[in-house]
Amino acid sequence: MTADTRFQQVAQELGHDFSGEIKIGGHYTPVISDGHQLYVSGQIPRVGDDVLFVGAVGDTFDVAQGQQAAAICAMRALAFLQRAVGSLDAICAILRITVYVRSAPAFTQQSEVADGASDVLRRVLGSCGVHTRTSVGVMQLPKGAAVELDLIATGQPIERRV
Amino acid sequence: MTADTRFQQVAQELGHDFSGEIKIGGHYTPVISDGHQLYVSGQIPRVGDDVLFVGAVGDTFDVAQGQQAAAICAMRALAFLQRAVGSLDAICAILRITVYVRSAPAFTQQSEVADGASDVLRRVLGSCGVHTRTSVGVMQLPKGAAVELDLIATGQPIERRV
Amino acid sequence: MTADTRFQQVAQELGHDFSGEIKIGGHYTPVISDGHQLYVSGQIPRVGDDVLFVGAVGDTFDVAQGQQAAAICAMRALAFLQRAVGSLDAICAILRITVYVRSAPAFTQQSEVADGASDVLRRVLGSCGVHTRTSVGVMQLPKGAAVELDLIATGQPIERRV
Repeated sequence: MTADTRFQQVAQELGHDFSGEIKIGGHYTPVISDGHQLYVSGQIPRVGDDVLFVGAVGDTFDVAQGQQAAAICAMRALAFLQRAVGSLDAICAILRITVYVRSAPAFTQQSEVADGASDVLRRVLGSCGVHTRTSVGVMQLPKGAAVELDLIATGQPIERRV
Repeated sequence: MTADTRFQQVAQELGHDFSGEIKIGGHYTPVISDGHQLYVSGQIPRVGDDVLFVGAVGDTFDVAQGQQAAAICAMRALAFLQRAVGSLDAICAILRITVYVRSAPAFTQQSEVADGASDVLRRVLGSCGVHTRTSVGVMQLPKGAAVELDLIATGQPIERRV
Repeated sequence: MTADTRFQQVAQELGHDFSGEIKIGGHYTPVISDGHQLYVSGQIPRVGDDVLFVGAVGDTFDVAQGQQAAAICAMRALAFLQRAVGSLDAICAILRITVYVRSAPAFTQQSEVADGASDVLRRVLGSCGVHTRTSVGVMQLPKGAAVELDLIATGQPIERRV
């Protein structure tokens, strides 16, 4: 099964469609490739015109909801990668995801929230979903989103050394 | 008109001079190049010895002032790039800018604030100012600055695929 | 003296051992290399099973304690680099460190805290510890850690231009 087929499966399970126009909210571009590296802009859990998770995790949302929000951010990033390179099967690894979690003051499970994105990368890309990750808890995010995620992917096979 | 000339024009419009020494505040270096990629350290809106915007956006400052702060950060980053490579005409794209906005708790227009930086990149670099972007709202920033921005540039022509 | 020997010296001075298993807390990998670039996941000041600094800097911890926390994060990142490439002498520069400081609302010395990490890089790697840096103050971090640090290193000699 191809990564593109798995992408469709995960989209169906999440109950959202990522095949139409994907809106972004500012004076920038969603993806740039530099050689084999692909930079994807920060994604919030927006589907169509709506930001689906507006609020802080640990307050408005619990960890499971935060994971859903993170999963949608990851799917948006994958959708942009797919458009940029034609097929997700061309992605060899995700060099970095940074997951910003809008957090209630005492909420410390940012890493668990980020697992929602990590699991999407692994399910869709298989062993090419391997990634490094940074998760932080922030005061606010654009549109009041609960999660924002950006990433850098590579289309060059990586050497596995650790 | 060259990117360097446009840089001078934008500096004049902002009313600030970026031609002298640019101070940084810690044990690190402002720019490193790795092949054709250039990493620029986080910039706050400091001109000479003074941080011009100290406070939170959505509280001390409104969106327009936040945009001005973001514009100064972007100009500082461009000034370092110019010194690193000799001319801003050598820059082919900005792979990533990350814009950290010190935010009042309920302030959610981080993306609009970041447009202040994005517009400077486009004005100075023209089509080579294309960039991906991540904007987040943070609790605090060094020296209490309203905005901090870092970036990664490339001196290698990019393939436009999205 | 090799960078690996200096790493052991700094570990002894800090009073911690980084030679055993280094735990990470989620569904991701600690290091990925893409060509000569190495991405290291976000590190908190965890030694063995314990996060040594849990709390906000400017509240629970002062600047000196924040610097110690940042130093441990940097040592963890170096330990992962060492395992990935065999010897720290193979590292030519640190393209970026991002230092997230869990901050009390009025705390603005994130850059001073980050110097704790910068100093470790310089001491262990010598002139190859040159790096760009971004320091921000965030609401929360995973496990309530006081500091989180991620980095991108390069194993390719850099051209010094600034």
